[in-house]
Amino acid sequence: MLSDSVPVRCSILRGGTSKAVFFLANDLPPDRPSMEPLLLSVFGSPDIRQIDGLGGATSQTSKAAIIGAPSHSGADVDYTFAQVSVGEQLVDWGGNCGNISAAVGPFAIDQGFVRAAEPVTTVRVHNTNTGKIILEHVPVRGGRAASEGDYAVPGVPGTSARILLEFSDPAGSLTGKLLPTDRPCDEVKLDDGRTFQVSIVDAANPVVFVAAEALGFSGTELPLDIEAATAATDTLEAIRGVVAEWLGLVPDRHDATKVTPGLPKVGFVARPMAYRTTAGVDVPESSVDLTGRLMSMQTAHRSYMVTGAIATAAAAFIDGTIVNALVRPIGQRPIAESIRIGHPYGVMEAVINGDGPAAAPVIRGVAIGRTARHILDGQVWVPRGLLPAG
Amino acid sequence: MLSDSVPVRCSILRGGTSKAVFFLANDLPPDRPSMEPLLLSVFGSPDIRQIDGLGGATSQTSKAAIIGAPSHSGADVDYTFAQVSVGEQLVDWGGNCGNISAAVGPFAIDQGFVRAAEPVTTVRVHNTNTGKIILEHVPVRGGRAASEGDYAVPGVPGTSARILLEFSDPAGSLTGKLLPTDRPCDEVKLDDGRTFQVSIVDAANPVVFVAAEALGFSGTELPLDIEAATAATDTLEAIRGVVAEWLGLVPDRHDATKVTPGLPKVGFVARPMAYRTTAGVDVPESSVDLTGRLMSMQTAHRSYMVTGAIATAAAAFIDGTIVNALVRPIGQRPIAESIRIGHPYGVMEAVINGDGPAAAPVIRGVAIGRTARHILDGQVWVPRGLLPAG
Repeated sequence: MLSDSVPVRCSILRGGTSKAVFFLANDLPPDRPSMEPLLLSVFGSPDIRQIDGLGGATSQTSKAAIIGAPSHSGADVDYTFAQVSVGEQLVDWGGNCGNISAAVGPFAIDQGFVRAAEPVTTVRVHNTNTGKIILEHVPVRGGRAASEGDYAVPGVPGTSARILLEFSDPAGSLTGKLLPTDRPCDEVKLDDGRTFQVSIVDAANPVVFVAAEALGFSGTELPLDIEAATAATDTLEAIRGVVAEWLGLVPDRHDATKVTPGLPKVGFVARPMAYRTTAGVDVPESSVDLTGRLMSMQTAHRSYMVTGAIATAAAAFIDGTIVNALVRPIGQRPIAESIRIGHPYGVMEAVINGDGPAAAPVIRGVAIGRTARHILDGQVWVPRGLLPAG
Repeated sequence: MLSDSVPVRCSILRGGTSKAVFFLANDLPPDRPSMEPLLLSVFGSPDIRQIDGLGGATSQTSKAAIIGAPSHSGADVDYTFAQVSVGEQLVDWGGNCGNISAAVGPFAIDQGFVRAAEPVTTVRVHNTNTGKIILEHVPVRGGRAASEGDYAVPGVPGTSARILLEFSDPAGSLTGKLLPTDRPCDEVKLDDGRTFQVSIVDAANPVVFVAAEALGFSGTELPLDIEAATAATDTLEAIRGVVAEWLGLVPDRHDATKVTPGLPKVGFVARPMAYRTTAGVDVPESSVDLTGRLMSMQTAHRSYMVTGAIATAAAAFIDGTIVNALVRPIGQRPIAESIRIGHPYGVMEAVINGDGPAAAPVIRGVAIGRTARHILDGQVWVPRGLLPAG
């Protein structure tokens, strides 16, 4: 009698402050709807503890990456990102995860998609969720991606080898436009009549920015403080729902949480301020150019999303956005084209390569330093019925 | 130049309501002190998120099992359990984990330590932490441990094949005695002068039982309620410290949290009562013979430890213990030799095989039904320096 489980090759890698299960596209069912039951099974979802699978029971540890031969002439690999819900029967394919992007280069090198060249190998990654190219500069040692180095990412213990991620031409990842509404600032009106000024910027992912003070926040709150302020987080989610409807992601704004929980992203920003991180480290005002907090799948993100940082950096360079009004002015920054965002775990720096009028800049790329680690290679056992027969 | 990481074979299995990384003893350094840095690295500890390793950032998902050839003539495999601290630089080898024990039989079969025989293969497991033998009756299909079945374990979604665990001769796992103090009840005096009646029973693991009402609890609290009652949990930990000193596990009771955080176990019990589980399911009084809550590594256990259930069942059969005074009397139970313990996730049943005078019974074995699943086989990458050269 046949065993009731079959093995599927997989790897586990940390990318930045997230962790994901990596698959080769050829090992999975051919389309997303038939991949979803398999991914949910692999992660042990839905279950708030994900005890029967590989999931880590948080949104930052319930992510999958599917890597295959490139469908884009300028790329070495295709990379598809999937956010697997912890507690719901749901897989979200809507956007990319910048942190996990940092692990795609190392995986592609270790799997032989790209010839390993020391000391640094550049991998051209085509993210299929956004249609965008990411250039990843990965340190290599002994034919494998190196993990040892001296670069620190807030939220990750110790230091590792730095991977520089250049998100090429990030504008319009979902909507085709840097400013999907053609305006740097819009007014959102909620069901209860309250109105909020928002900036909607689509770079790497679409993100909705609100001023912290409009929500009653100072901007320096930590994730548990944010989640305790349920009236404010409900307001943020309602604002996100309106924008999701505007962007055509859901017919009715009230269904956004269910239909498109991950996109657009939403967050709030404030002027540069001194604050204390989750780990109790004091960050002086002079170390940051902006104070920012993002939501992730209806919870407060523990650090700051890489794709969110790219959108934040882009927004900072556009006259009239809420971010532009709050960021440290260019003349007062150490590096004009760089934005240091103060987040709950520390500071993330994004460097913009672009030009043109500040009312409508051309953004050729945004670069962010990350680290990654190849943790495990193996095969995960899944119920036989979840793979095509044969 | 050599890569800075080397692969070590491992597997991930769920056992009951816990999840562990399994290793073959031959693949690891030869002694526990040199294994500890490797295990901490594999799990990503210390780090409250364990983001750079395989840990799941909770005590129930930060466990390791090391399996090798038997050193006991009555066993098929040796099984060593390690509790890897999430946030501290610490590996605790002091006790066994009953939930993870349920995954040892399936792993031993899948790895070929025992010839797979359908429909049920019995694996004789020697737990080196306690020196005890566990007989595991494992359903087998297609030459592998079966995962599909109709047995439900509270705290695990769905149903799986039932694995019956018989803990043979569980008494005296650590201390050599069922009642380490030779008394069914002792009085603990704390530094502040308060005194508490406790029962210390060593079966599968040593456990200290306190009456819920002595701590100001009703007994039906859920883990978050328990953890919010910090005065009561501090008292429990202080009681545990005194008993750790009595048992010779630490010279000074005030160092118990640091030196021996996992042993003895401690918990509180109450008469059978109706309550609502963490998942919102109502448990009627008639479904339980005792209400129980256990602590695990200074936090409230989300369900109930298997080894704790064995000690609880043993305590229920000994005249004069706090458990014996609160458990539903034998004449009123559906099965005289069975105890149904109501815990935060549901009900766990333990069946005793024993006899002798109730003041000093002989306990030949305690049987508990569990489920397990072989989730992944692979190799985990660890820094080269953590393995012996060669």
